[in-house]
Amino acid sequence: MYIHNRIIHTLLIDLEMYQEILENLNIATMSESLEAYGLITDGTIALNEDRIAWCGKRDNLPSQYQNWPRRNLNGCLVTPALIDCHTHIVYGGNRAKEFELRLEGATYEEILNSGGGIHSTVRETQNLTEDELVACAIPRVDTLIAEGVSTIEIKSGYGQDKITELKMLRAARKIAQLRPIRIKTSFLGAHAVPSEYGSNALRYIEQVCIPALEQAHSEGLVDAVDGFCEKIAFSTVHIERLFGRAQELGIPVKLHAEQLSNCGGTQLAARYKALSVDHLEYANEADVVALAESGTIAVLLPGAFYFLRESQIPPIDDLRNHCVPIAIATDCNPGSSPLVSILTTMNLDCTLFQLTPEEALAGTTREAAKALGLSDTGRIEPGLRTDLAVWNVSHPSELSYHIGFNPLQERIFGGVQWKRQGRTSNGS
Amino acid sequence: MYIHNRIIHTLLIDLEMYQEILENLNIATMSESLEAYGLITDGTIALNEDRIAWCGKRDNLPSQYQNWPRRNLNGCLVTPALIDCHTHIVYGGNRAKEFELRLEGATYEEILNSGGGIHSTVRETQNLTEDELVACAIPRVDTLIAEGVSTIEIKSGYGQDKITELKMLRAARKIAQLRPIRIKTSFLGAHAVPSEYGSNALRYIEQVCIPALEQAHSEGLVDAVDGFCEKIAFSTVHIERLFGRAQELGIPVKLHAEQLSNCGGTQLAARYKALSVDHLEYANEADVVALAESGTIAVLLPGAFYFLRESQIPPIDDLRNHCVPIAIATDCNPGSSPLVSILTTMNLDCTLFQLTPEEALAGTTREAAKALGLSDTGRIEPGLRTDLAVWNVSHPSELSYHIGFNPLQERIFGGVQWKRQGRTSNGS
Repeated sequence: MYIHNRIIHTLLIDLEMYQEILENLNIATMSESLEAYGLITDGTIALNEDRIAWCGKRDNLPSQYQNWPRRNLNGCLVTPALIDCHTHIVYGGNRAKEFELRLEGATYEEILNSGGGIHSTVRETQNLTEDELVACAIPRVDTLIAEGVSTIEIKSGYGQDKITELKMLRAARKIAQLRPIRIKTSFLGAHAVPSEYGSNALRYIEQVCIPALEQAHSEGLVDAVDGFCEKIAFSTVHIERLFGRAQELGIPVKLHAEQLSNCGGTQLAARYKALSVDHLEYANEADVVALAESGTIAVLLPGAFYFLRESQIPPIDDLRNHCVPIAIATDCNPGSSPLVSILTTMNLDCTLFQLTPEEALAGTTREAAKALGLSDTGRIEPGLRTDLAVWNVSHPSELSYHIGFNPLQERIFGGVQWKRQGRTSNGS
Repeated sequence: MYIHNRIIHTLLIDLEMYQEILENLNIATMSESLEAYGLITDGTIALNEDRIAWCGKRDNLPSQYQNWPRRNLNGCLVTPALIDCHTHIVYGGNRAKEFELRLEGATYEEILNSGGGIHSTVRETQNLTEDELVACAIPRVDTLIAEGVSTIEIKSGYGQDKITELKMLRAARKIAQLRPIRIKTSFLGAHAVPSEYGSNALRYIEQVCIPALEQAHSEGLVDAVDGFCEKIAFSTVHIERLFGRAQELGIPVKLHAEQLSNCGGTQLAARYKALSVDHLEYANEADVVALAESGTIAVLLPGAFYFLRESQIPPIDDLRNHCVPIAIATDCNPGSSPLVSILTTMNLDCTLFQLTPEEALAGTTREAAKALGLSDTGRIEPGLRTDLAVWNVSHPSELSYHIGFNPLQERIFGGVQWKRQGRTSNGS
């Protein structure tokens, strides 16, 4: 009548430096120079501590690696570890109640009056300590790590005052001390105009944003400067004021642009050689040409598209035709994309934007690395970091195909191996 | 330079019978008689082995339970364990390659010619042994268990011959021996017309389906009889032939109906007092009235709606207006809904069909139980099974709000406790 079988669920962690040969595996190298995922069947990878020493067909393994210890991966697929290049994963509270009110028919005004909207997240984020913000973010970060993610970009932007913006960035940096993950920070002081600044967004940029940026930069907290260019947020004039200061400080920029309407943000960002422009639903071909000319990455965020029930699809064919690299990301945030799964993001991109599974995997590896200005990860090539994900699948298309199913077997992060073993085995 | 923190991920399992008081928790009882999730704040539940002895406000705990051992749930939310009332989770292979070909622009003919479509799943399912089918399904079942699921409905239907239909049902039954999960089976011999029967679907029903049903029933493998009523599958005439035999055998029926067009399946199923009618995108108000009169549950399957990029939304307002209970399910299957997350299903229902989070939770608990003819689970009430899910959330709306985030803390299955402890803790 009751269950007498013993079920053993264990996640074992090994923490050891290593020099070894991984064999009996397929490799989606995601190398630019190779076609179709850069796929190498019956491959071998030589790992030398935190760097890839060699990868290729098993039979071609050079003699100097022949005596290294070997590990059989039983036909698994190895990809670069995944990269989530656009998140707001550090925040206080959640907006589930607002989600519920909206579905029960509440108007936007009623939601605002009940304390909802971005200002509720700002309030809750202001009220938490740095450690409390970290504690809130860690379960979400762990969820991404469990899906093979090695690198996460984290934005500030729920502060709207200097002290909270700095607190958010410090919390983001702290996560990299507590978990085996690489964090890139973006200063997003220009996220929403605080109500007390009313129509004077420029005053907010000058009196709050730029001083906060300067201090955060002086503390080494800023890897990039970001903004939200939209009718309901900041105009190109405001963003340009901020980007000018970022340029003087030598910090690269990126921008949320053309998400809800075409406001000119993409072309502005391209003029500043932005690392990435993100969202892009309402971008037109001229915007895409500007991205191509500036070498800027297009970051698509299907979570917000889905959650907001948007119908305008980003100009995918224009991006393809003009050879603009496409990255994709969760946009994890409490208001418009409470999405904490990079694998689900890949499926959303394929299903809603008709990306191919290969584009989706490139978008969470090779192109996501570019969107963060990283040249040492995102592909499996000699000299790059050993940021690898090992999957119990026979073909890389399976990573985008499933929804809510995680076939990760093991993650290797810069020389440290994170095993997911004996996921469910059955004994007596 | 490297990560030296020790990360401990453990899933501990306790297997012990128990009699205990759970306290310091909120309870979404999902009782019909109470409003708003049947929510009891600061609640207490008394568990007597596999049955709920009592639940209510802490202060009202009757004296006979005062001396039972107590466990503090630290303010967690307890809901009925979730129920996935429509799956095809037992199958061979996957259809990721077909998904990829479609996104690369292949036509339907090209996919069929490359071996895709349902017939590829039939072939792969026929080629596997019963144990191999179980082994393929177990990782998916484990994924659902990890989201607090206690009960899964599993259909046959990839056999198209007697031997494979029986093999699928035996595999489904075996899963309940290997995992702490309750399985309800549905015989879905009438899923797709085998190509060798061409236009003579009735001959397939009579020569294959009904004999297979009779044998499966004689072996105790059939809890319900299901069919796919659609232009590309079986007409109401064919389904009625099958339902007639089910009725003679005393087996309840259910039906896939009005998914791609209105073919009359709903009204037929209602005449046979079906437990549920599933999909319903193209159902009209007369169909809904028929469901209301027959006491049949409407099962919505947003995974297929999403994955097939359908635009016709089921008649939600009609279902509400005519008080037809709405259940929801993953429809987990390799062709049209490779969705293995009941929590993501709840979000899909809210986002795409505008169900409220309360309807979504009722749809995976109380109403899903009804769709399977189960009266001993799906609510938290005295006398019902201790099938409970404990969530680290403060309000039940959070279960539908997140995408790809699993806040399950613990699952209790018919008197057996499954703990998810120390999910990620950080040491030195």
